[in-house]
Amino acid sequence: MDEKQKLLTQYRALQTAARLGLNRPEVTAAIVALLDEGRDFLSKKCSVAPLKSNVPNKKYHTFTDGKRASRPVNTDLFDASISPAGIAAVLQAPQSLDAATLKRSLYTWAMTFCAANDVLFVSDQKKPGTFFEYFVGHIFARLYNANPQKFTQVTSLGLNTRIPTDYIFDLGASKARIHLPVKTSTRERAIQVWAHQRVLDGLHGQNKFRGVLVCLAETNKQTEQNSVVEVCVPEQWRLYQGYIAQLHRIYYLDPPAPYLALSAGNPPVKVSYFSDFFSESAKIVSLT
Amino acid sequence: MDEKQKLLTQYRALQTAARLGLNRPEVTAAIVALLDEGRDFLSKKCSVAPLKSNVPNKKYHTFTDGKRASRPVNTDLFDASISPAGIAAVLQAPQSLDAATLKRSLYTWAMTFCAANDVLFVSDQKKPGTFFEYFVGHIFARLYNANPQKFTQVTSLGLNTRIPTDYIFDLGASKARIHLPVKTSTRERAIQVWAHQRVLDGLHGQNKFRGVLVCLAETNKQTEQNSVVEVCVPEQWRLYQGYIAQLHRIYYLDPPAPYLALSAGNPPVKVSYFSDFFSESAKIVSLT
Repeated sequence: MDEKQKLLTQYRALQTAARLGLNRPEVTAAIVALLDEGRDFLSKKCSVAPLKSNVPNKKYHTFTDGKRASRPVNTDLFDASISPAGIAAVLQAPQSLDAATLKRSLYTWAMTFCAANDVLFVSDQKKPGTFFEYFVGHIFARLYNANPQKFTQVTSLGLNTRIPTDYIFDLGASKARIHLPVKTSTRERAIQVWAHQRVLDGLHGQNKFRGVLVCLAETNKQTEQNSVVEVCVPEQWRLYQGYIAQLHRIYYLDPPAPYLALSAGNPPVKVSYFSDFFSESAKIVSLT
Repeated sequence: MDEKQKLLTQYRALQTAARLGLNRPEVTAAIVALLDEGRDFLSKKCSVAPLKSNVPNKKYHTFTDGKRASRPVNTDLFDASISPAGIAAVLQAPQSLDAATLKRSLYTWAMTFCAANDVLFVSDQKKPGTFFEYFVGHIFARLYNANPQKFTQVTSLGLNTRIPTDYIFDLGASKARIHLPVKTSTRERAIQVWAHQRVLDGLHGQNKFRGVLVCLAETNKQTEQNSVVEVCVPEQWRLYQGYIAQLHRIYYLDPPAPYLALSAGNPPVKVSYFSDFFSESAKIVSLT
């Protein structure tokens, strides 16, 4: 099997495992097997090429096989020495890693597949998006010990239908539900997340669903200049939080500074590293 | 010049004309010149290939040069005998055409560029989207005798900034403003339109901006089966209209029947042929 076929085989195995239920150790195993394959490819077949970073205080590089290059990779957050096998331990005992190591581990795991797939499958955005959804969905499923749905039931005057949604976690009447959109980057699509949250609030009432958006990064590679920028619209996000609906948390694996700064604004938009989720997962669904 | 270069030259001329102001006869002339080029290409270099239509009561075909094929074209609405030069007359005297001819003319004009560009520039969605925005924006600009903006000014507690928007027409204090998003198709992006409308309503107050969405079609070609479907989510649209914001009108050049049926529902979503705009343009901005 060539490299493409090897990665694709493990990707399909993860798809199958995920569809049978995200809250299962078999999904962890499938993620580890996929990332082992991606890590192998990146370390043996690719080299690192630096990019000119136009993002203050962040360094970026790509992985390349000499012909095709990956998306920008945050040099300080990607640590090739971190083994995919560590995912199982983190899911069992999140406190076993210090915050800095957890940040780098989560970023490295998510980026390992995305970067390998970028090099092997040119302009395929679909597999990285779906992988990242499984990766984040699995972490939520294990930490809450629950399988998500991807719909909400609407029974209202004259309506009785299922509406498709992002992941929804229902942890019983004593907890808030989680509305979990997952995106590798948001671009102009972030407004969709606030709009979906508003529909859920309208259908089911305020504070029944807590909106938690998880994103990988907002980097954009400018091919001609061989440089990286972050595409951010913090003022628009503040308007969405003020006028459309309230998102409870926004987590990034590589958070842009202009979004982190929104936590201190009014209305606050609480943006932080995804590693924070591991220590505040219980608080997020608490009604008290 | 080859066919690609000829179409591109006229497209760039339209871009230049549009950027100098949509409410100008020079834009009509640039649209006519571009469509003459597209019509020439379709009639001389392309043949018509029927598609299997899975849309009740609608027939579709593609244009093809033998290698590449256009998006689905509604066979009853596309009329190759309609000349692009007729646009100027319609803008001067919309009542000069009967409703059925106006429907076919608008569809034929919009589709002429999109289909020609599909065949000449494979998987380019950008030029058809931008062309369609100019085409619809120009019609609004001429009928309202006003140039649109693409931003709204936000001056609120601590904020003083411009937010980018779709076209906004400001016709003075005695009229409602128009918020005009234009899309060749909506897919999962329709919710953005309702969400933008909600932000405008929140910033500036209810009924200051009337939301008018104009779309070309919702057809999707299934390449393997050589067939066409319409992708529609009418129940979701009803939820958006009920829980996010109110759109005033939604116009299609090739309206899907499931969306036309929403006009009679509750809350009503008024969906109709774009040709209706020509007779109700004054009513749409009336405050009385």
